[in-house]
Amino acid sequence: MSLLTRINDPKDLRELSVDDLKTYSSEVRQFMIDVMAKIGGHVAANLGVVELTTALHYVFDTPKDKIIWDVGHQCYAHKIITGRRDRFHTIRQDGGLSGFTKIEESPYDVFGAGHSSTSVSAGLGVAEGLWQQGLSNQVVSIIGDGALTAGMAYEALNHAGHIRRPNFIVVFNDNEMSISENVGALARFFSKRVTSSLYNSLRTELKAALQAVSTKDHDWLQSAHTLGVAVKDLFSTSSFFEALGFRYVGPIDGHNLDDLVSTFESVKKLSQESIHQSRENKTGEPFSGDAPILVHVKTKKGFGLKSAEDRPGDFHGVTGFCTHSGEPSKKAGGAPSYTGVFASTVTRIAESDRAVVAVTAAMPDGTGLSKFQKQFPNRFYDVGIAEQHAVTFASAMRLSGMRPAVAIYSTFMQRAFDQLVHDAAIQEIPLALFLDRGGLVGADGPTHHGVFDMSFMRCVPGMHIMAPKDENELQHMVYTALYCDKLASVRFPRGEGYGVALDGTLRMLPLGVSERLVECGKPVVVFWAAGSCVYPALEAAKELAALGVACDVVNARFIKPLDVSALMRDTGRAKLIVTIEENAVIGGLGAAVLEALAAKGKSFPVLNLGIPDEFIEHGAQGRLRAYCNIDQKGIVKKTLERLESISGFKRSPVESAILKELSEAPRVTH
Amino acid sequence: MSLLTRINDPKDLRELSVDDLKTYSSEVRQFMIDVMAKIGGHVAANLGVVELTTALHYVFDTPKDKIIWDVGHQCYAHKIITGRRDRFHTIRQDGGLSGFTKIEESPYDVFGAGHSSTSVSAGLGVAEGLWQQGLSNQVVSIIGDGALTAGMAYEALNHAGHIRRPNFIVVFNDNEMSISENVGALARFFSKRVTSSLYNSLRTELKAALQAVSTKDHDWLQSAHTLGVAVKDLFSTSSFFEALGFRYVGPIDGHNLDDLVSTFESVKKLSQESIHQSRENKTGEPFSGDAPILVHVKTKKGFGLKSAEDRPGDFHGVTGFCTHSGEPSKKAGGAPSYTGVFASTVTRIAESDRAVVAVTAAMPDGTGLSKFQKQFPNRFYDVGIAEQHAVTFASAMRLSGMRPAVAIYSTFMQRAFDQLVHDAAIQEIPLALFLDRGGLVGADGPTHHGVFDMSFMRCVPGMHIMAPKDENELQHMVYTALYCDKLASVRFPRGEGYGVALDGTLRMLPLGVSERLVECGKPVVVFWAAGSCVYPALEAAKELAALGVACDVVNARFIKPLDVSALMRDTGRAKLIVTIEENAVIGGLGAAVLEALAAKGKSFPVLNLGIPDEFIEHGAQGRLRAYCNIDQKGIVKKTLERLESISGFKRSPVESAILKELSEAPRVTH
Repeated sequence: MSLLTRINDPKDLRELSVDDLKTYSSEVRQFMIDVMAKIGGHVAANLGVVELTTALHYVFDTPKDKIIWDVGHQCYAHKIITGRRDRFHTIRQDGGLSGFTKIEESPYDVFGAGHSSTSVSAGLGVAEGLWQQGLSNQVVSIIGDGALTAGMAYEALNHAGHIRRPNFIVVFNDNEMSISENVGALARFFSKRVTSSLYNSLRTELKAALQAVSTKDHDWLQSAHTLGVAVKDLFSTSSFFEALGFRYVGPIDGHNLDDLVSTFESVKKLSQESIHQSRENKTGEPFSGDAPILVHVKTKKGFGLKSAEDRPGDFHGVTGFCTHSGEPSKKAGGAPSYTGVFASTVTRIAESDRAVVAVTAAMPDGTGLSKFQKQFPNRFYDVGIAEQHAVTFASAMRLSGMRPAVAIYSTFMQRAFDQLVHDAAIQEIPLALFLDRGGLVGADGPTHHGVFDMSFMRCVPGMHIMAPKDENELQHMVYTALYCDKLASVRFPRGEGYGVALDGTLRMLPLGVSERLVECGKPVVVFWAAGSCVYPALEAAKELAALGVACDVVNARFIKPLDVSALMRDTGRAKLIVTIEENAVIGGLGAAVLEALAAKGKSFPVLNLGIPDEFIEHGAQGRLRAYCNIDQKGIVKKTLERLESISGFKRSPVESAILKELSEAPRVTH
Repeated sequence: MSLLTRINDPKDLRELSVDDLKTYSSEVRQFMIDVMAKIGGHVAANLGVVELTTALHYVFDTPKDKIIWDVGHQCYAHKIITGRRDRFHTIRQDGGLSGFTKIEESPYDVFGAGHSSTSVSAGLGVAEGLWQQGLSNQVVSIIGDGALTAGMAYEALNHAGHIRRPNFIVVFNDNEMSISENVGALARFFSKRVTSSLYNSLRTELKAALQAVSTKDHDWLQSAHTLGVAVKDLFSTSSFFEALGFRYVGPIDGHNLDDLVSTFESVKKLSQESIHQSRENKTGEPFSGDAPILVHVKTKKGFGLKSAEDRPGDFHGVTGFCTHSGEPSKKAGGAPSYTGVFASTVTRIAESDRAVVAVTAAMPDGTGLSKFQKQFPNRFYDVGIAEQHAVTFASAMRLSGMRPAVAIYSTFMQRAFDQLVHDAAIQEIPLALFLDRGGLVGADGPTHHGVFDMSFMRCVPGMHIMAPKDENELQHMVYTALYCDKLASVRFPRGEGYGVALDGTLRMLPLGVSERLVECGKPVVVFWAAGSCVYPALEAAKELAALGVACDVVNARFIKPLDVSALMRDTGRAKLIVTIEENAVIGGLGAAVLEALAAKGKSFPVLNLGIPDEFIEHGAQGRLRAYCNIDQKGIVKKTLERLESISGFKRSPVESAILKELSEAPRVTH
């Protein structure tokens, strides 16, 4: 029997010898490769931390000691070790394990994470809570070098060095590469590509001096060498973390289980002694034993799978890969993705306008802007996982005469809300924001669904919020956002477009004007739909028309400013307005319609469809949209239900039959 | 004629000798002291940077070269120098100069700021924009040591060191103290309270070795001394900034104009040469001349006003002070402030519950929590200007069994929106958030008004959003938020309460239940008011009742979950529902009411009063509330106007007369 199947729990793991651990780690890696080849996942990150994960659970007394992963998409080995091997093949699938750590899934998942750079804050909070309760368990937060570019991580390290609890341990998982090549001066510093000229001159002078005076009794040069090493250490990673108040240990080889186990055992012992010592210290003064500990571990992304080691970027998140060729699975060419159309459009515009630059927060591939980067390396800015800085930096560039296109996933834009309000909007800086992954994203689940941007942006004065119905309209919205000289956002969904023809000439859409796609003489219902919900609304309208319910379909185009005159006209023509959006039903397009009617002193029947007031789990986009009743079926059903309740509208027998059928039918997964 | 009145522009300044500059600086300082003694302002910060500001405008060719202030509340000397001396006495007053930098006010105000830690991002964006356009002007961002605790500043420094533009200069204004004592390990590092044991041992060993071999021909100890100084530098502030890719200059005395002028002249020359050199460099490789420059300036808060130097915390923001005694003005004891009641309540609760801890982001005084800190120093956490970290840290503490009270101003909570969603809400962590300065704050203006929190929080699943009608209800809401085991926020206004009696016993308010303060048999109107708008609604109801318009008044208490059953009942009783809130009318309580009615399939006349969709300027709270029609007069007027438009409601002649009078009367400032 393999070790893999014998280990059901970290307790089982702790029975093994270190040599058995090595065998076990190899089996875990092979198991992960086999599963991920079929179902995909975050391959490179997960393969890089197999030994690290094994060693942590081996040495620390989890779940009493706490391990807190950053981003969470490196938690596969952790899940396998902590009793979830049998369900591992369901990861990121409908109803299966989450691709991230998740509190409800296991007592070993101390803190959930999908966004980057939260693990130090979370670990420090847990460590401090345990400390306050007089408990002596250790808390280990893992953070990668990419995640360290985010200000939040720095805020937490700075605070950790300030409150000084020896039960807190940070593992710096340094693979000199996060999702893409790391940006930031600090990354360069860590990788020692920069050496200080001051250090070099010091070293040279010292060498010459000591060489001159060395005798056979005393080799001063040798002494200097020792000192030299010490000085050099000060220039390396350690000095940075020591400045932040940590005790620095490392760097150690993150794929060598002997080193990992012995280092963590020492660190654990040091921490335990320090906890004791610190509790005994009644002086109130900080002393060295108080300091939290940082362990610097060097790992290699994709370790053990050659193609992933060579091209970790390609193996960040994949849908699967071939175990023979090592090639990631490619989907047969469907319609172009929204991401692709966005990136091509910006790049094309940049060809004729020198002022156009592109800004991304560590997502050159995810946002498609690597295309722009290739063509215009000097007009491309990857600022790191630093959405706050991205928005203010780009606002200031706009002010100085450039025309930046800022591409940030909808969910990550939440990190830059204050910068949007305080730096862009108050100053009326006409920044263009492009929010990819707007709406339900699928397998990544609740941490990644981009379903709040319309709500949190709509309350900001001066915002122009657009959502395209298809990839062709996206092109024109990209152009409009860049040249309308207003603070504007364009949010578009994850995935493919509809394969519609792409206009050759880009044009400016009239601001705040909707597009009526279906106009009946006398509609019963008017659909006001945004973005990804426009085509489903069109299909729903067709279905309802066949039932004798005439429907207009309006593509809102602008969630803000809303086309109020078109809306007001509809209240004189129809019996019901139905709003449909892939955004929280609270505060989004539906609320905009209600507020506009109220402001005009008009009370009129409105049905709001959108994401309900709950966090939506992971699963196929189609299934999730059906759950939210924003697909064709859901729209038809909910519309008929509401019509039924409106006086003056009588349902035909056919409609009644359809509604009954819809209500009884099991929801079909798209 | 004094120099002060002769200098109308930085151009005039540049005609002076450095000795004259000293005289001028003294005059500026005295002028500022005289004005601020009367009208108040951010005394300590502004007095600390008089010489720095003078030197920057003297050496750099503003406004072609750009100076970007952080936070902005240190811009008084800047405003005086740049043509705003005559209006300086209007600062922060109704219709007067802003207390912060503001683009519309002057071409010298390159970037506005009210929130902290944005200047490096803004400066880098402007510098990069100018660079892209082939311009050679310099950009100088000033940032304080307190502001450096914010992650955003770090993100920007890291990016600046990465893109390496020599036209970018950062002035690190180090006063070893921001608003309160600085927190963070880095602050300790900068202030050299920690010395490295490694450095000390290195130094001792080196000294012994070289002493032993020195001859009269060659004093190796002297060489070592030189090296020693060099090594020591590496341990100081410089190494931190050099790690981030900057060329480090300093530290220099920020009150010595000779040093300031000569240093900035050198730095300007270095920057200019580097710009030239960098443009000539075609290799594409980074080289030392590319690096941005950091100038470390040591200043003293409150410099030149003894009482402010001694107690800078007391002189952060004052309403005035006595130039003789040096005492800040104190208002005659009115009702207790909301801040005070909040802090007393948390402190009182903490007396009987060991699990209660308090968390603030660099605002121990502003949030009143310094009271808590005094009583429970070990259960108090000031995390620095780090709202992101504060929320995640506190969420994790809550998870580990503690019960943190997190106090953040409403406007600064915008910095932690993602952490609220991703770390607290998705994981259903029942964190208690207390948002001081909710609503219109007055003199600090648009960057500080806290008018979006109800909107951006309401879309977050699981949120419980409360607003108290008075300081007594605040007490119970503090208790409710801490013990309801839900993710909850309580937002309360800046300023004094109503002087109502404070209940001795705290109680849990029923979740999602409103409070009906006035109930008529057959109301024409029902007011649904939140927080600070409840008392004005009561007054308005009285006024309307006198006109024969019967009004119910409901204190919403919970903006989320809304008391939908009470609301639905009202649709059967009244002709109009009026919502009133000191929050953006977009997405707040008004939207909640509209959405709830729509969800119930009910169309009913609703009038939404709140902050209109624009940024509100600075001015007295009363005047601003009147402008927004959320004071008694505004509520009466808008209600009568809307009633008029509702069929089935006939206005009496008295009402008509009143409405006419209200419409014609000039708006009175409260």
